[in-house]
Amino acid sequence: MELTMAINAGSSSLKFKLFEMPAENVLASGLVERIGLNDSIITIKYGEGDKFNEVLDIDDHEVAVQMMLEKLIELNIIESYDQITGAGHRVVAGGEDFSESTVLDEAAIQKIEDLSELAPLHNPANVTGIRAFSKVLPDITSVAVFDTSFHTTMPKENYLYSIPMEYYEKHAARKYGAHGTSHDFVANRAAEIYGKPIEDLKIITCHLGNGASITAVDGGKSIDTSMGFTPLAGVTMGTRSGDIDPSLLPYLMEKEGIETIGEMVNVLNKKSGLLGLSGVSSDMRDVEDAAAEGNEDAQVALDIFANRVQKYIAQYIAMMNGVDIIVFTAGIGENGPDMREQIINGITCFGCEIDPAKNDGVRGKETELNTDDSKVKVYLIPTDEELYIAREVARLK
Amino acid sequence: MELTMAINAGSSSLKFKLFEMPAENVLASGLVERIGLNDSIITIKYGEGDKFNEVLDIDDHEVAVQMMLEKLIELNIIESYDQITGAGHRVVAGGEDFSESTVLDEAAIQKIEDLSELAPLHNPANVTGIRAFSKVLPDITSVAVFDTSFHTTMPKENYLYSIPMEYYEKHAARKYGAHGTSHDFVANRAAEIYGKPIEDLKIITCHLGNGASITAVDGGKSIDTSMGFTPLAGVTMGTRSGDIDPSLLPYLMEKEGIETIGEMVNVLNKKSGLLGLSGVSSDMRDVEDAAAEGNEDAQVALDIFANRVQKYIAQYIAMMNGVDIIVFTAGIGENGPDMREQIINGITCFGCEIDPAKNDGVRGKETELNTDDSKVKVYLIPTDEELYIAREVARLK
Repeated sequence: MELTMAINAGSSSLKFKLFEMPAENVLASGLVERIGLNDSIITIKYGEGDKFNEVLDIDDHEVAVQMMLEKLIELNIIESYDQITGAGHRVVAGGEDFSESTVLDEAAIQKIEDLSELAPLHNPANVTGIRAFSKVLPDITSVAVFDTSFHTTMPKENYLYSIPMEYYEKHAARKYGAHGTSHDFVANRAAEIYGKPIEDLKIITCHLGNGASITAVDGGKSIDTSMGFTPLAGVTMGTRSGDIDPSLLPYLMEKEGIETIGEMVNVLNKKSGLLGLSGVSSDMRDVEDAAAEGNEDAQVALDIFANRVQKYIAQYIAMMNGVDIIVFTAGIGENGPDMREQIINGITCFGCEIDPAKNDGVRGKETELNTDDSKVKVYLIPTDEELYIAREVARLK
Repeated sequence: MELTMAINAGSSSLKFKLFEMPAENVLASGLVERIGLNDSIITIKYGEGDKFNEVLDIDDHEVAVQMMLEKLIELNIIESYDQITGAGHRVVAGGEDFSESTVLDEAAIQKIEDLSELAPLHNPANVTGIRAFSKVLPDITSVAVFDTSFHTTMPKENYLYSIPMEYYEKHAARKYGAHGTSHDFVANRAAEIYGKPIEDLKIITCHLGNGASITAVDGGKSIDTSMGFTPLAGVTMGTRSGDIDPSLLPYLMEKEGIETIGEMVNVLNKKSGLLGLSGVSSDMRDVEDAAAEGNEDAQVALDIFANRVQKYIAQYIAMMNGVDIIVFTAGIGENGPDMREQIINGITCFGCEIDPAKNDGVRGKETELNTDDSKVKVYLIPTDEELYIAREVARLK
């Protein structure tokens, strides 16, 4: 039995999923929270809905990895450390250096650390996770899987901003995008369902979760994506503003007495989007409930969300000069039939038509949603970023 | 003979055009520059290409108006002040208050002054021009024509940003757009050429000048436009960045040692766009020349310009769920056949096709540019904002 772990390390957390490969069976998934704080929590889900929970003090990520492995043995999920032969680490920013997943050595880890400027909250934490695993399991194949790699195929006219060229040359100020693993995963699955090589297809993937991004996948390659230099840009999100006129920043700072640009951007990241507009919640379900009860701001928030997604779908049809498939995935994309319908119903001029009989009430299940006459296919495809990571480890071993 | 003047006042300048109405004959046009500085310059064009030029000291806008009128009499263009019965003043920001052109009284002038926050460089100068004319010609009909009025028909989901709702409620932070007179003018002319009531048409107007904006005109009303809270947003322009990830601001400020957000926004307004990308010029003709000589950055600047315009055209097809006519106007739109072709050739999936035989070399002349088979009409329509202003005065007299 060859086991591979997909890992997502945060500054005080460690999320994992344990796969039996190449069968792709999930043996367990879990989370260690509050690492380095008091009362750390370790949670493991396994078997047929079994759940293990323990509160204890975990000083650092290395201890977290050890604890997690010990618990996996105690729970009879694995027999020994040796069974784990590969680990795949999610890394947020790969910059221009990492155009694909990479087997980790010290030089690669150093490079990831050097890219921290592009993701100050995430890359350092990702590296902490990588180092912790390397210490506890020094002999396994470790792979970094980047959120950005899939988007490194974008052409210049899509990744450059219209700012002085030296800002790109000196400071790497450009669009990097995010959610690459998800967009790549569902685009490839969409091609399989469609029954044509992905090289011959124009696909728009809508990853609509709390963070949301849309990607134009032309012939299997990302040629444009809605997130930008950071994940703040693009469509309306749970708490993020997406695109706004940059002139609003100085105006709002003066009006609201916000003293630093950092604080202002913080508002755009954490207090905007669905939450800021509706005043209710960052969770689409709460906003939908409020709108149904007559909350007008909540209804406006929903309308704006649909509107921004429609605008990016349209842009990417332009960028590919056509589209064969539109894919919905992630939290809202998988579980928001009303939002899917609202989005597609507004842009039927592009040849896409959703069939309410196929769409209504469908959640989290691979489904063709379009009418039989629709020229453009509309798919719901659940994403699985952990499986993607595990597959990348298998591919590179 | 009833004469109407269209006026565009800047902080140290006064631009005017004198129309005989309702015949719409242009009797003269001119400019007073360096008002309040030494060596002010007054220029008047009239007759069959005649041009008058004089350098003298002009202390303020009131003197500028008097001088201008004196010269018009000296040049035998008018016989007396009394012939001028109307003046239309271009005003940049009308906020939410002015949904149409307005006959000016003290209350209206005060309101325009109060809106200065939305256009700190322009509205105060516009008011200075209005007051100067009122003093010299107290008995004529004075009308304010706003750049923003045409866009006040936008629905909430297009004019609101995904930021906290209280920023809109308390500080009027929203999209206002610009170039409204131009978009309205060419959209109505497009409907005339098409031969159908504008109420039944979906029109996308591309005002591509040194400043550039795209508007979705649905049934004669603006329902969305690419400029935002200020004219910085939207497509790539001569020196303006258009849309960027707001997170770039703090990043670039730190990297470049730019100390205030105001300076940063200044770079985005004045050193970005075609100029910033190409390093050559803000003028499309210079950038095209440089690209033709092999300057790669210049070529990238052109590709990005076309790309951003395509993206907005696509968005507005989505917003109207279709399109009947795409209009090109203003400097680049009227005089850039290569750019027009590049833009339309990339988005033929929307049913628009440009005919090189009709487009090549055509500058500044009303022309149908599409192929006979094209489902979507593509028109070149020269804009005339001054004539629009003169007509508004006539309409409101």
